[in-house]
Amino acid sequence: MARALMNRSKKAGLPPGTLVHIGQKKLDVQRISVVDYDESTVDEYEVEDIQRQCVTLKEKPTVTWINVDGLHETEKLKALGDCFGLHPLVLEDILNTDQRPKMEDYGDYLYLVFKMIHCKAESSVVLQEQISLILGDTFVISFQEQEEKVFEPVRERIRSGKGLMRKMGPDYLVYALLDVTVDNYFSVLEKLGENIEVLADRVLKIPEPKTLGEIQISKREMLFVHRWIWPLREAISALSKRDSKLVKESTGIYLRDVYDHTLQIMDAVDLYREMLSETLDLYVSTVSNKLNQVMTVLTIIATIFIPLTFLAGVYGMNFKYMPELEWRGGYPLIWAVMIGVGVSMLIAFKRKKWF
Amino acid sequence: MARALMNRSKKAGLPPGTLVHIGQKKLDVQRISVVDYDESTVDEYEVEDIQRQCVTLKEKPTVTWINVDGLHETEKLKALGDCFGLHPLVLEDILNTDQRPKMEDYGDYLYLVFKMIHCKAESSVVLQEQISLILGDTFVISFQEQEEKVFEPVRERIRSGKGLMRKMGPDYLVYALLDVTVDNYFSVLEKLGENIEVLADRVLKIPEPKTLGEIQISKREMLFVHRWIWPLREAISALSKRDSKLVKESTGIYLRDVYDHTLQIMDAVDLYREMLSETLDLYVSTVSNKLNQVMTVLTIIATIFIPLTFLAGVYGMNFKYMPELEWRGGYPLIWAVMIGVGVSMLIAFKRKKWF
Amino acid sequence: MARALMNRSKKAGLPPGTLVHIGQKKLDVQRISVVDYDESTVDEYEVEDIQRQCVTLKEKPTVTWINVDGLHETEKLKALGDCFGLHPLVLEDILNTDQRPKMEDYGDYLYLVFKMIHCKAESSVVLQEQISLILGDTFVISFQEQEEKVFEPVRERIRSGKGLMRKMGPDYLVYALLDVTVDNYFSVLEKLGENIEVLADRVLKIPEPKTLGEIQISKREMLFVHRWIWPLREAISALSKRDSKLVKESTGIYLRDVYDHTLQIMDAVDLYREMLSETLDLYVSTVSNKLNQVMTVLTIIATIFIPLTFLAGVYGMNFKYMPELEWRGGYPLIWAVMIGVGVSMLIAFKRKKWF
Amino acid sequence: MARALMNRSKKAGLPPGTLVHIGQKKLDVQRISVVDYDESTVDEYEVEDIQRQCVTLKEKPTVTWINVDGLHETEKLKALGDCFGLHPLVLEDILNTDQRPKMEDYGDYLYLVFKMIHCKAESSVVLQEQISLILGDTFVISFQEQEEKVFEPVRERIRSGKGLMRKMGPDYLVYALLDVTVDNYFSVLEKLGENIEVLADRVLKIPEPKTLGEIQISKREMLFVHRWIWPLREAISALSKRDSKLVKESTGIYLRDVYDHTLQIMDAVDLYREMLSETLDLYVSTVSNKLNQVMTVLTIIATIFIPLTFLAGVYGMNFKYMPELEWRGGYPLIWAVMIGVGVSMLIAFKRKKWF
Amino acid sequence: MARALMNRSKKAGLPPGTLVHIGQKKLDVQRISVVDYDESTVDEYEVEDIQRQCVTLKEKPTVTWINVDGLHETEKLKALGDCFGLHPLVLEDILNTDQRPKMEDYGDYLYLVFKMIHCKAESSVVLQEQISLILGDTFVISFQEQEEKVFEPVRERIRSGKGLMRKMGPDYLVYALLDVTVDNYFSVLEKLGENIEVLADRVLKIPEPKTLGEIQISKREMLFVHRWIWPLREAISALSKRDSKLVKESTGIYLRDVYDHTLQIMDAVDLYREMLSETLDLYVSTVSNKLNQVMTVLTIIATIFIPLTFLAGVYGMNFKYMPELEWRGGYPLIWAVMIGVGVSMLIAFKRKKWF
Repeated sequence: MARALMNRSKKAGLPPGTLVHIGQKKLDVQRISVVDYDESTVDEYEVEDIQRQCVTLKEKPTVTWINVDGLHETEKLKALGDCFGLHPLVLEDILNTDQRPKMEDYGDYLYLVFKMIHCKAESSVVLQEQISLILGDTFVISFQEQEEKVFEPVRERIRSGKGLMRKMGPDYLVYALLDVTVDNYFSVLEKLGENIEVLADRVLKIPEPKTLGEIQISKREMLFVHRWIWPLREAISALSKRDSKLVKESTGIYLRDVYDHTLQIMDAVDLYREMLSETLDLYVSTVSNKLNQVMTVLTIIATIFIPLTFLAGVYGMNFKYMPELEWRGGYPLIWAVMIGVGVSMLIAFKRKKWF
Repeated sequence: MARALMNRSKKAGLPPGTLVHIGQKKLDVQRISVVDYDESTVDEYEVEDIQRQCVTLKEKPTVTWINVDGLHETEKLKALGDCFGLHPLVLEDILNTDQRPKMEDYGDYLYLVFKMIHCKAESSVVLQEQISLILGDTFVISFQEQEEKVFEPVRERIRSGKGLMRKMGPDYLVYALLDVTVDNYFSVLEKLGENIEVLADRVLKIPEPKTLGEIQISKREMLFVHRWIWPLREAISALSKRDSKLVKESTGIYLRDVYDHTLQIMDAVDLYREMLSETLDLYVSTVSNKLNQVMTVLTIIATIFIPLTFLAGVYGMNFKYMPELEWRGGYPLIWAVMIGVGVSMLIAFKRKKWF
Repeated sequence: MARALMNRSKKAGLPPGTLVHIGQKKLDVQRISVVDYDESTVDEYEVEDIQRQCVTLKEKPTVTWINVDGLHETEKLKALGDCFGLHPLVLEDILNTDQRPKMEDYGDYLYLVFKMIHCKAESSVVLQEQISLILGDTFVISFQEQEEKVFEPVRERIRSGKGLMRKMGPDYLVYALLDVTVDNYFSVLEKLGENIEVLADRVLKIPEPKTLGEIQISKREMLFVHRWIWPLREAISALSKRDSKLVKESTGIYLRDVYDHTLQIMDAVDLYREMLSETLDLYVSTVSNKLNQVMTVLTIIATIFIPLTFLAGVYGMNFKYMPELEWRGGYPLIWAVMIGVGVSMLIAFKRKKWF
Repeated sequence: MARALMNRSKKAGLPPGTLVHIGQKKLDVQRISVVDYDESTVDEYEVEDIQRQCVTLKEKPTVTWINVDGLHETEKLKALGDCFGLHPLVLEDILNTDQRPKMEDYGDYLYLVFKMIHCKAESSVVLQEQISLILGDTFVISFQEQEEKVFEPVRERIRSGKGLMRKMGPDYLVYALLDVTVDNYFSVLEKLGENIEVLADRVLKIPEPKTLGEIQISKREMLFVHRWIWPLREAISALSKRDSKLVKESTGIYLRDVYDHTLQIMDAVDLYREMLSETLDLYVSTVSNKLNQVMTVLTIIATIFIPLTFLAGVYGMNFKYMPELEWRGGYPLIWAVMIGVGVSMLIAFKRKKWF
Repeated sequence: MARALMNRSKKAGLPPGTLVHIGQKKLDVQRISVVDYDESTVDEYEVEDIQRQCVTLKEKPTVTWINVDGLHETEKLKALGDCFGLHPLVLEDILNTDQRPKMEDYGDYLYLVFKMIHCKAESSVVLQEQISLILGDTFVISFQEQEEKVFEPVRERIRSGKGLMRKMGPDYLVYALLDVTVDNYFSVLEKLGENIEVLADRVLKIPEPKTLGEIQISKREMLFVHRWIWPLREAISALSKRDSKLVKESTGIYLRDVYDHTLQIMDAVDLYREMLSETLDLYVSTVSNKLNQVMTVLTIIATIFIPLTFLAGVYGMNFKYMPELEWRGGYPLIWAVMIGVGVSMLIAFKRKKWF
């Protein structure tokens, strides 16, 4: 539930641009690492003192990718923001980790914020981490809540120099990061899809209330994924259509490709939600089916024995003049009658397919 | 229910522009207080006689924030309206406290009306108060139904002179008031969210009809919040996009930030409504589950004893020639048979997982 | 049901422009009354012979409001239409009283048609009457199906000369008529709202099928109101945005105010429909709750007595050798056992909160 | 079901423009009749040889209305198409009688296709027939699947020369045909509406599964009508807004009138669907109500007699020492007790309003 | 389920433009066949070595249709892409067989991707195959996952030289392929429609849980078809409206015709989904109806015998003074009473239409 609103109230009344980290502290030490590259060179190092290193980071004509892991040391982030001339509201949004995915154009730089998702093994619960990207003239700044390995393949591609990576500008780097993020959505959705199949199987075998709870959790998680991917789609669309000098025509084609992927993810999410609804319907119908079957069988047993008990009751009466009681074959006869009545009722019910 | 339509019929047939206060009188004395500031000075005082003080209020080049608490003294409001040249329909709207949130451009000034919400402790009922803002060249007029402390932090920031507050114009003041209002929505929603969690827990423990009623109340309250935030979002959007001389470019960025917050609130409201629907489903399924369980157990008890009663009935018959009755071990034997039948039925039902 | 389609088939095959009054004749005598006013004079009279009086009505520079009560004397209406140069289709629409509210611009005049609603005391049934307005250069013609007093306050305001009424042109008169109509919607909705509250109370006390029927009637009535107000909203919006010489800029502001009122009405209608849905859910859950309770209690009674009956049956058997039967205290003992079994079952069920 | 897709597969793989009649052959002999008129003359005749008569039909300056009944003689239709220069795809669409209603502009002529509906007496099943219209410079060609009398009133009006019919061009003729068609929708809907009322009454009296089936058929028919009227509405709208030389300004007003009628039909269809949903709800609630009542009464009967049977069982026990059995008044007493228990249970249940 | 996301994770982290075939390998040997034609000549051959034959394929002024069956030999596809200057992302999309149908304009060529559907006999499961089309100046390249005969009729038409096929350019060929594909949708939907009718019949006869499963499968398949046809519709619309030199005006009319067919398919899919929902409702109501009937009859049997058993129990009591027991006619009398009670209960229930 915490995910709906992460105690925003902490900030109520503070002036805008006040930097307060909203969200859990997920990392002990904040780490700022830089990958600086152009077609011929790659340079990797960590930033110790932002103010001193600022000019190098900002003005070198190579592509500078600054990655920040951890958001709790607000002082350093402020220094970074001052260095690159970020608007106070952008810094505030980076720190508030319950942002809606969006893209904002501030002229000199573009600001992108979205969610990276993870999924614990054998669980339907989806964890999210907020990622912010600043795309400038010669630099990209990425902010992560914790040290995640998701961007590692991109770093690897920069190091190896294969593909277009090193030949293109910072906009292509942003594309690569988005692409990796969206590919990650596919992986997580695959896992969730498998869980849904498991749930559907379990519903058919043992329709317990516990399974019902898990279906509802899955449904809510899908709702969250939908909520994160939908505005991301819009943001990417806005990015690819922008006639900004920051995003080149040639990168636009790649962004439209990522955009298509977000559409596929949304289709998959819709499908999974549909499947969860079906599983829910299946649960309800299985439970009610089982109950109906049980009640029908029980009622049939009762219904067969009640008339027999009545017959037995009749010959338990104490009337003085009851001729049947005197008959030699009375007792076997009554057994025959009772068995006959019982069996014929059973056959009648069976024939009517009542059980 | 009163919130749906606050006896509007009081006004039926009156000519437009007639000033009638629609809504409850929430305050004894109407109070008009002024905060007048620019970058270097702050001046706070109360207005006693509007007509006399009008020129000062209106023409001083500093930012003049006039706050009106209470709407029942229509005479004074009329004087205020005349002083600032407000259209009679604007005054009428300020007094009708069941307005839909909206923004209207009257050329010389903008008129904004929206709802401030409050939430009683440990209750799901949301109270609302209508707030109207007039944004002019050098002044902002705010109208509140009662003396609320929600705007106090803004006043505090003006006094302290920290941040951008004193450096910016009246449009930034409007932004600050909207920001405080929207932050307040976050606080109230957090409380409502906690109530919803409590409800969900209670549903699982004791699914009483009373809980059902509370879920429905919560759902309706969420509907109201949705109804108040949705048009507010539109109004803020219109404000931020307006190419009016009254809203500066630099303030536009801040307004878009508030706009993003309204989107987050709407997401949260949607999520809470989803959760309430789930809680409702949970209630229904818990109740029906409990009933099914009870009925199954009861029916099983009956179903086991009915054949046994039949057997007892058989040996209660008074036939003259019933050999079993003469047997020495007949009685213990029949007990054995009856216990056997009962236990094997029990085992069969258990094995079929009927209970 | 008649309201869905008022025997339109009467007209099938007739050429367009044929004047046939579709709808009930609600009035005996058709009455054409005129209010002719400008800032200084007011003149009221009835029209006897349209053809003769036509020139006066049409060419006098004062504002001429012609009100027609009753639509069955098609001859007179045709004369009126000829006099003011109305298109045959407009006259046809005026007579077909099942029009969808709409606004049409015929260049020289605007045609507006909408529904006035009424509500019988202590009933949820909403009655409607079709009202047509023609707004010309210097005249307004209004057509009513019956003599209703709803427009009386407007007439009163013209007579008194207070407010803007006499200072403004015929477009303001149209606004005033629309305003009165929309205010009337508020009154009727208030009454309906009270009925809904009464229904909700009754559902909780005595959930009869009759109440269910009334809820459904209320829902359908709300549907009708929604259907009448929705296109009216559009018509008013079109009117206020029109850059026609017939609607002045200054009147536009007033029309936007009425437009806001229609939005509020639609919000109220939505809310009432939501409340009716809740009431329906409440009905269903109350009925099923009651049934469940009854069935549970009945089944518990049966379930307690069935094993006891079995015990009694056991000692009613006629085996020769049943030692218990010989015991002196056998009979009191069996009573004790039976009471013990019954009471402990009762306690067990109670503890499990089964009733 | 055939109506969803009329064996289209017959055409799979054929090149476009291949003329195959898809649909049932509803007529034995194809008939091509012509009405040729202007303000002063009317001429009616049948076409025998299209190729020979083509020049006359096409180039005479009078309005030429060619009506084709029956679509199975594709040769003749091809000749007609060649004569008037129709695109092969238009001819193909005319023959495929499962077209979606639409309007297409081919420059020299407009192509309109829509559905005429009929309704068998006392049935909820709606039959449809596809009608195609070609509007050219001086001619209108109409294609019907069978000889229907629906267009007769238009022919009658041409003959009589009353009204605008003979004074206006072919666009007005198209309007007249559309108007007659739409009026026919009203008639059919009225009949369907009556059937729905009958269904609602029957549901309340005898809620049989058969009635349920009829409600569902009615719902599906309404779906079909909705599906036919919705795109027709669009087509008429496109026609009335077209700035084509083929549709005159003056006819545009009339087309907008027909457009308004389609809106009314859609409102009526929506209302009927709403009513059918209500009837369905009513059916469900009536059935479950009846069942609940039956089960409650039956269970009450059982619940009253089970304890009494227990009591009887007690005094049927064979204990040696049962003092009550020796009492003179024992037997009447036990009757009194049993009647007392039964009656007090009955009263208790009645008081709790359980039946 | 595999259809929702075809292990995309295989590609996670790979740089864009990496050619990996996602999907099942459906064919052993990849086959590239060419049909080269203009108005006078047709030439058919297979491509062995793309690099060598490239110039011929590309620069010959005739229309060159290159058809690729099988997508697993990525090397050859790369060579083909290089030859025709296709963007790496296009090749990647061709290989990822879980694309959303779409149309993309790359200036020199258009890229179209969509789904061909098949349906196993007597099954509701729909199989799909991804088809990609490249439309260039003088060439069309089509990519199929397996060797399907669906495009054979088009090849046949090219060979025969009948119709417009050979007279028009490559855009008309693309139209012909789309037309064949869409016609194929009609065939498959017809089969599915027949299955739905069979399901509806079975539901009425034997409402088994198995049937329920099949209804749900059918519903999901319809969802898939809807998902494939919806974006195809958009793609065709974009194609027909494009003012690209690649699609001629005259072909646009044909494309709009295919577009109309996709609308009809969507209508049919909607209708089938509606019918499946009805079938589902029918299933639920049939099952509950059957259960209600069974339970009512069983309960009636029990309810009739319980009072009779009570009566028998009464005369089984052992009171010393029970005068009835001494009567000569006591026994026949009690039989008469019991039969009387039973029959009158039966008549009463019957009269109340309880069974």
